[in-house]
Amino acid sequence: MIIVFKPNATKQQKAHVENYLTAHGFDYHPSQGQEQAIYGIIGDTTKLTPEFFKVFDGVSDAFRVQESYKRCSRAFHPLNSKVKIGNTTIGGNEITVMAGPCSVESKKMLDDISKEIVTYGANVIRGGAFKPRSSPYDFQGLGEEGLIYLRETGDKYGIPVVSEIMAISDIPLFEKYIDVIQIGARNMQNFALLKELANVDKPILLKRGISATIEEWLNSAEYLASKGNQKIILCERGIRTFEKSTRFTLDLSSVPVIKKKSHLPIIVDPSHPMGQRELVIPMARAAIAAGADGIMVEVHNNPDEALSDGAQSLYPKQFKELMKEIKIIAGALGKTIAKN
Amino acid sequence: MIIVFKPNATKQQKAHVENYLTAHGFDYHPSQGQEQAIYGIIGDTTKLTPEFFKVFDGVSDAFRVQESYKRCSRAFHPLNSKVKIGNTTIGGNEITVMAGPCSVESKKMLDDISKEIVTYGANVIRGGAFKPRSSPYDFQGLGEEGLIYLRETGDKYGIPVVSEIMAISDIPLFEKYIDVIQIGARNMQNFALLKELANVDKPILLKRGISATIEEWLNSAEYLASKGNQKIILCERGIRTFEKSTRFTLDLSSVPVIKKKSHLPIIVDPSHPMGQRELVIPMARAAIAAGADGIMVEVHNNPDEALSDGAQSLYPKQFKELMKEIKIIAGALGKTIAKN
Amino acid sequence: MIIVFKPNATKQQKAHVENYLTAHGFDYHPSQGQEQAIYGIIGDTTKLTPEFFKVFDGVSDAFRVQESYKRCSRAFHPLNSKVKIGNTTIGGNEITVMAGPCSVESKKMLDDISKEIVTYGANVIRGGAFKPRSSPYDFQGLGEEGLIYLRETGDKYGIPVVSEIMAISDIPLFEKYIDVIQIGARNMQNFALLKELANVDKPILLKRGISATIEEWLNSAEYLASKGNQKIILCERGIRTFEKSTRFTLDLSSVPVIKKKSHLPIIVDPSHPMGQRELVIPMARAAIAAGADGIMVEVHNNPDEALSDGAQSLYPKQFKELMKEIKIIAGALGKTIAKN
Amino acid sequence: MIIVFKPNATKQQKAHVENYLTAHGFDYHPSQGQEQAIYGIIGDTTKLTPEFFKVFDGVSDAFRVQESYKRCSRAFHPLNSKVKIGNTTIGGNEITVMAGPCSVESKKMLDDISKEIVTYGANVIRGGAFKPRSSPYDFQGLGEEGLIYLRETGDKYGIPVVSEIMAISDIPLFEKYIDVIQIGARNMQNFALLKELANVDKPILLKRGISATIEEWLNSAEYLASKGNQKIILCERGIRTFEKSTRFTLDLSSVPVIKKKSHLPIIVDPSHPMGQRELVIPMARAAIAAGADGIMVEVHNNPDEALSDGAQSLYPKQFKELMKEIKIIAGALGKTIAKN
Repeated sequence: MIIVFKPNATKQQKAHVENYLTAHGFDYHPSQGQEQAIYGIIGDTTKLTPEFFKVFDGVSDAFRVQESYKRCSRAFHPLNSKVKIGNTTIGGNEITVMAGPCSVESKKMLDDISKEIVTYGANVIRGGAFKPRSSPYDFQGLGEEGLIYLRETGDKYGIPVVSEIMAISDIPLFEKYIDVIQIGARNMQNFALLKELANVDKPILLKRGISATIEEWLNSAEYLASKGNQKIILCERGIRTFEKSTRFTLDLSSVPVIKKKSHLPIIVDPSHPMGQRELVIPMARAAIAAGADGIMVEVHNNPDEALSDGAQSLYPKQFKELMKEIKIIAGALGKTIAKN
Repeated sequence: MIIVFKPNATKQQKAHVENYLTAHGFDYHPSQGQEQAIYGIIGDTTKLTPEFFKVFDGVSDAFRVQESYKRCSRAFHPLNSKVKIGNTTIGGNEITVMAGPCSVESKKMLDDISKEIVTYGANVIRGGAFKPRSSPYDFQGLGEEGLIYLRETGDKYGIPVVSEIMAISDIPLFEKYIDVIQIGARNMQNFALLKELANVDKPILLKRGISATIEEWLNSAEYLASKGNQKIILCERGIRTFEKSTRFTLDLSSVPVIKKKSHLPIIVDPSHPMGQRELVIPMARAAIAAGADGIMVEVHNNPDEALSDGAQSLYPKQFKELMKEIKIIAGALGKTIAKN
Repeated sequence: MIIVFKPNATKQQKAHVENYLTAHGFDYHPSQGQEQAIYGIIGDTTKLTPEFFKVFDGVSDAFRVQESYKRCSRAFHPLNSKVKIGNTTIGGNEITVMAGPCSVESKKMLDDISKEIVTYGANVIRGGAFKPRSSPYDFQGLGEEGLIYLRETGDKYGIPVVSEIMAISDIPLFEKYIDVIQIGARNMQNFALLKELANVDKPILLKRGISATIEEWLNSAEYLASKGNQKIILCERGIRTFEKSTRFTLDLSSVPVIKKKSHLPIIVDPSHPMGQRELVIPMARAAIAAGADGIMVEVHNNPDEALSDGAQSLYPKQFKELMKEIKIIAGALGKTIAKN
Repeated sequence: MIIVFKPNATKQQKAHVENYLTAHGFDYHPSQGQEQAIYGIIGDTTKLTPEFFKVFDGVSDAFRVQESYKRCSRAFHPLNSKVKIGNTTIGGNEITVMAGPCSVESKKMLDDISKEIVTYGANVIRGGAFKPRSSPYDFQGLGEEGLIYLRETGDKYGIPVVSEIMAISDIPLFEKYIDVIQIGARNMQNFALLKELANVDKPILLKRGISATIEEWLNSAEYLASKGNQKIILCERGIRTFEKSTRFTLDLSSVPVIKKKSHLPIIVDPSHPMGQRELVIPMARAAIAAGADGIMVEVHNNPDEALSDGAQSLYPKQFKELMKEIKIIAGALGKTIAKN
């Protein structure tokens, strides 16, 4: 933490801050600039906040210089962490492709879609069983039945499955049926849920909250890592901005930023933010070009009849085409598409 | 729902949409403009989304014309709904003031603060027992112990108490100890929690999510109302924007907008978004002037030693001063401060 | 400027930064924390940017500790600056009310409106002659004719007039006809225009850009102040956020923030951001309660026929009512409405 | 325009709207839904705004169904428009690369950088002569001298040059020296400047404003197109959001959205939003993968000594590497890099 005093700060005002620091076990290092004094605080400052000091008389500003996350920080763990899912390892030189319907609607539809996407190279089957919906009147998912279909379909094709969890009480179901547990954007700061999932021995796919800064996102990952679950995959899925022509603004710059700040792998979901399938494909390609470790896309064999988000689901043939394109793009970065 | 076709949409393209609508039980009303055809869809369109139609060939745009929330809409319930808490009724002609520390730190500190704020006119005592914290290393609250102190202090002064809930499993504790259950901003779209609280017979204080539109906020309220809990109080607490000089941007315009769209009462929390006590006071006054039914402010008798958010907590004397000011402002709107 | 090194920064990496600083005439003050070294840079750092140092190897972060604006900063000018307009002084204990139509449409309409608002207490008549319009097909204003009508009407009622300038070439017209020159939100960073207006001897009303931070806003004011024009009035008029129910989000918290950071007076325009007259009134009241030095509101005697922004224009009777309310609210802050 | 009435709108309220429309020369088409009446308005509604109708009694909502831009709309001009610059054509199957220093600092530095980037394949040399700077104390550019150096360097290498204009009075200089005139983000809604440049016979590079919606951006392009200048190239350069780890959020989804809504070519500037060179490269690749017609990147041979934005400037060797990567990525989309 750094405290910047006002040009005209008095001795008494500085003494007040100094006494506070000393009384709470911190040391400090004053540095007198041309106009202002600056104090560097020494000690474990993770529990101090800049805002706290900003209201002291004579203080002009305060900054945090240490990241509040440590286990997820590249500064302390320079090497990429890798998460193994089925035959795929995320975080290395391979691109992982997760695909499937927005919601699991029936066993047959999941099987029909899975058959095609596995043929075209998908590494993980995705499908929602518990759906977070803004309105209470929307389709809320098949629940456990959906999870069972995912398990059976995954086993049939020898492919791991991922699905979103919404409640702590559902953890045993996810432990039983699901390979990768997804925390959705709306629950990124559901700290009660994070604390429980920190103790689960499954990879966690942690989506970015729609208004979460990258720092907050890594702090949520730290909730998992601090309790022991290190198998974390981040997933960028768009942030809320003023632009209305897409549902969310896909912030692809989070990919290189995360790669710089953290050792965790990161994938990108272009389907939810773009909202329309013709816009999903270019952004899926762009995600790979930006350096993402993979993508998660929605595919539906009959999107006109989908019970949720049909407009953003690719046709299987579009998915096939996309796989060809990202293979070339991955090559430009010296990467390959993982085998399934 | 309204569907707007492109100027050059073909008969086949229109027929595709028409057939879809008919097959799914909707009627439609075509209207040919100078350049474009517009179809009004007739039927219960709450389950249709504009995005779904936007990807049909020949379609230029689609709009929802019906609000997706009904029980919380003023269109269907023109009169203000009122929520009784202790001796106060929120939603009528009275201003309700909720005050207290950010976190309950000990029984003594809660009592010391409560004694003063009750003297100055606070109607409800607030205090956090389970704290949502971005970092896992921050103080997480006293838990049940904090709720007990709240209950005891509320009883001592004959004043209701409000506290934030974070997990479904804590509902029995809140039912036992707390008068008004607060859903925090980070949980506004924790739908699992909303569904459970819909069945609880206590007033719910629903804070706006930091990136929630007013429509989403009312939809979350609808989760409560649709299952039967009508005792809902909304609370504006700032949204996330690009501006960095405050923690969040307090969107006071949500007050008159909510009053227009909904019959629910709304209060304002200026403490969290402003982050510094000298900025809290002007915005508390502004909230009342904008027409809010009340405010929720943090007060601490020793903010330098507060375990959380000390910088934004008012000194008791500032609170006393604020009460005087808002009394005059309430008068300008023909309102009074509720008695405690 | 403060430079924070990474925990594992090498001697060579530090030496690189040190050599750069020395070679460019800066001194520095190293401070070794528990994990990281922090350097305070001494000298005129206004031309250095944090981003420049962030890309040096071994550097973790860099912060500016000095504001880049000086003449507009309260740190260097603790007393409120006051701007005299007609009989009114903005920046002291008086509330100034600017009112009038969005666009000047004819001499008669301007006179009709002015007669009423002057009766109800308006201190300054506003009216657009050159209109910034998103679309080239919208009404662009009467031009010089509009300015002449403003001058004549102002003279008739003995009230100063304010209007928005859009081009450097129009400065002579504004110098001739207008008392307060308004720089609109879209031109807040039109630096060519700012540089020219810095040399004009008229008060400048500088609106905040719709995506301008408060720091950028004060830097734009500094363009005026650094060249000699100190008669600056800031005007908050809403920022762009994700919320769609209002045109812009009126950031009233900028009022106390500006009062803290700067000595310049600040008024609020609630008409443009709110877009609908029933929402304008509560926010006008809230602006005064937040501590603004005045408001600027649109009034039209026949808003159904207004050539621009009729929906947000108050009826004269609403304006009359508003004046009564803000008089009481100003009283709560120990202020009075300026006489006209 | 579509007007949606409230469920309980009265005959008188509807008649008021109907009379207004008829009196102003519009026809309308009523459509009675299950709960609400919807009126489609027929006629040239470009001068009507939804907000205007929203405040009529009995009206619940109003929507625009026609884009306010026509000449820039793909709906009316289905084929891509192409802009020829030197040997390159933007808007077809070729990728155009614009590169060079942020600011022209001297003739020698411009020549040194140009020699390298031309060797590696740059198609257009960029360089700032008039710099828009937030603070009046920052380096403001070499002015005309900089334009002359650009001209001389462009002629030497047989490559066109692009530079940003800031004032109408500089147009003759740009017509004399510069091949492509850039309108910067801060001037995207400087309508006075747009109107003048509409009459200039040079290609215009129109950058997106930092808080401009895509619709507003296309409306600004319409200012140029409506007066006759059809040689417009759009340039995405990031929007302002809450995320602080990058200077702006590069909204790459604007690329496919623009391709859908408009026939104009679009390039991407990843340098300004990313702010740090290591983040620029991934986003340059991503821009091509998203379907952009080109990129504009900053390159400096001695970024540590750059007078502006050195941190975001690529080293020439990085630029060389980037050219190789985007060649492969362009290939994945069936495109080639333009020859220089």
